[in-house]
Amino acid sequence: MSANFVHLEQIKNVNREALYRNIKKKKSFLCIGLDTDIAKIPQHLLEHPDPIYEFNTAIINATHDLCVAYKPNIAFYEALGVSGWLSLEKTMSDIPDGVFTIADAKRGDIGNTSSKYAHAFFDVMDFDSITLSPYMGKDSVSPYLEYQDKWVIILALTSNQGAMDFQLMQDATDNKRLFEKVLERSQEWGSPDNMMYVVGATQASMIGDIRKIVPNHFFLVPGVGAQGGDLNEVAKYGLNDHCGLLVNSSRGIIYASSGEDFAEAAREEALKLQKEMERILGEAKLI
Amino acid sequence: MSANFVHLEQIKNVNREALYRNIKKKKSFLCIGLDTDIAKIPQHLLEHPDPIYEFNTAIINATHDLCVAYKPNIAFYEALGVSGWLSLEKTMSDIPDGVFTIADAKRGDIGNTSSKYAHAFFDVMDFDSITLSPYMGKDSVSPYLEYQDKWVIILALTSNQGAMDFQLMQDATDNKRLFEKVLERSQEWGSPDNMMYVVGATQASMIGDIRKIVPNHFFLVPGVGAQGGDLNEVAKYGLNDHCGLLVNSSRGIIYASSGEDFAEAAREEALKLQKEMERILGEAKLI
Repeated sequence: MSANFVHLEQIKNVNREALYRNIKKKKSFLCIGLDTDIAKIPQHLLEHPDPIYEFNTAIINATHDLCVAYKPNIAFYEALGVSGWLSLEKTMSDIPDGVFTIADAKRGDIGNTSSKYAHAFFDVMDFDSITLSPYMGKDSVSPYLEYQDKWVIILALTSNQGAMDFQLMQDATDNKRLFEKVLERSQEWGSPDNMMYVVGATQASMIGDIRKIVPNHFFLVPGVGAQGGDLNEVAKYGLNDHCGLLVNSSRGIIYASSGEDFAEAAREEALKLQKEMERILGEAKLI
Repeated sequence: MSANFVHLEQIKNVNREALYRNIKKKKSFLCIGLDTDIAKIPQHLLEHPDPIYEFNTAIINATHDLCVAYKPNIAFYEALGVSGWLSLEKTMSDIPDGVFTIADAKRGDIGNTSSKYAHAFFDVMDFDSITLSPYMGKDSVSPYLEYQDKWVIILALTSNQGAMDFQLMQDATDNKRLFEKVLERSQEWGSPDNMMYVVGATQASMIGDIRKIVPNHFFLVPGVGAQGGDLNEVAKYGLNDHCGLLVNSSRGIIYASSGEDFAEAAREEALKLQKEMERILGEAKLI
């Protein structure tokens, strides 16, 4: 497929300036994780033919003015097989144009295979971005970068316990840690206009070290709850002149209530975070 | 879901002894990669309602007596969206019981998400195994190991150019390389009965180093063509007392012909590799 063809298809995608404009307009850098689990959604939705979609569309309708991005974790949809893919496709069609979409897929494979994943998430699903694991190196990432106005979001320092197993390993030649190697090496693959990094919020103080290495890139920061504490730490270390942060909350928002008021409860939690973010953006003179 | 329930559901799965028995019975340690690309399959198949499935079922019928495993790379199916998942589900139902199935998915995510991928590939699709990236560490792997008689296949040293970017990084404390750290650390997560490693064939001499670290585990070795050369090198360094090797060939077999004789041509290429493997197993006194 030619780059032209891709470009024409994806004219409405969100580039870096458009993302920053949305952040200023909505006074928010909130990303809502659509980790929609059939076992956790309100039971009354199970009467619907597609409960996953019913849940997602209600969450999106209740929150899209408060967030700048949605991040479905693909595992929750693949776990349902074909019906999960159908729910995901329908969900994507409900996300308003201009809201950044992240396929949280954490893929990573050789070149010809990566091209297939890129087609699946960028052409078939029309996501703006996809999360990738860096373990297999450059040719597992570069096929995604051939798409105009599409993004890769590379795992750097994750927020889970297992992050300690390998990501902090220090290089014998320069004592740099694996996640720092990933940040530095990947600079040669893309730019702040098509590459972001996953930086776990449980590592708030390390976000400062990471910001020094990549001053201009956006970070996708998972693991921030409804309480402002983490968020202030993340902003303190991570903000740049384009905000440079997409802070994700999943369960804290979408499962705020297990009753019929789940969408309103989700909006309330999203609103708390948006208000915190508005204050932070104001104090940073970004709005 | 309880381990018992899983066990009862998956009673026919292939454990280590069963895999070794199949290798001896078929005189083969061949894995055939079903990287089925709609753009590469014979054009006459496009008349069928499900060309991907038609291609796969013909390849399986023509080769299942010559190989001990099939490895669909999930990217090729996801690239087709919902119809790809349907083709994959139908393909899985055509693979004879006892033939080891590998979901080449290279997943890797946090615990609760990994559980969803495990459900997708082990319960919904009933694969025997899945390939995983180690970047996120233990909790991105352990949920898969809770399944009885299911396997994880962890990326150690891959065969692509990008493998050089991070996998060879040396640790400052003991000079061990990242892929060696992955091999050693992951020993604490599973055993030779539920864990294998991806070891690229382009690194044949290094397979010896890896075999010293993990003497009993099976290796999934991609990148071996129809010519015996690589195969002899891989066997020289990688064989153990249970064979310990699953050598994969994808394009060299499934795209041997683009005509109506594609299945027969695939069988001929598979047969060449099986004969080489029979000689190798004989010389090693394993059959």
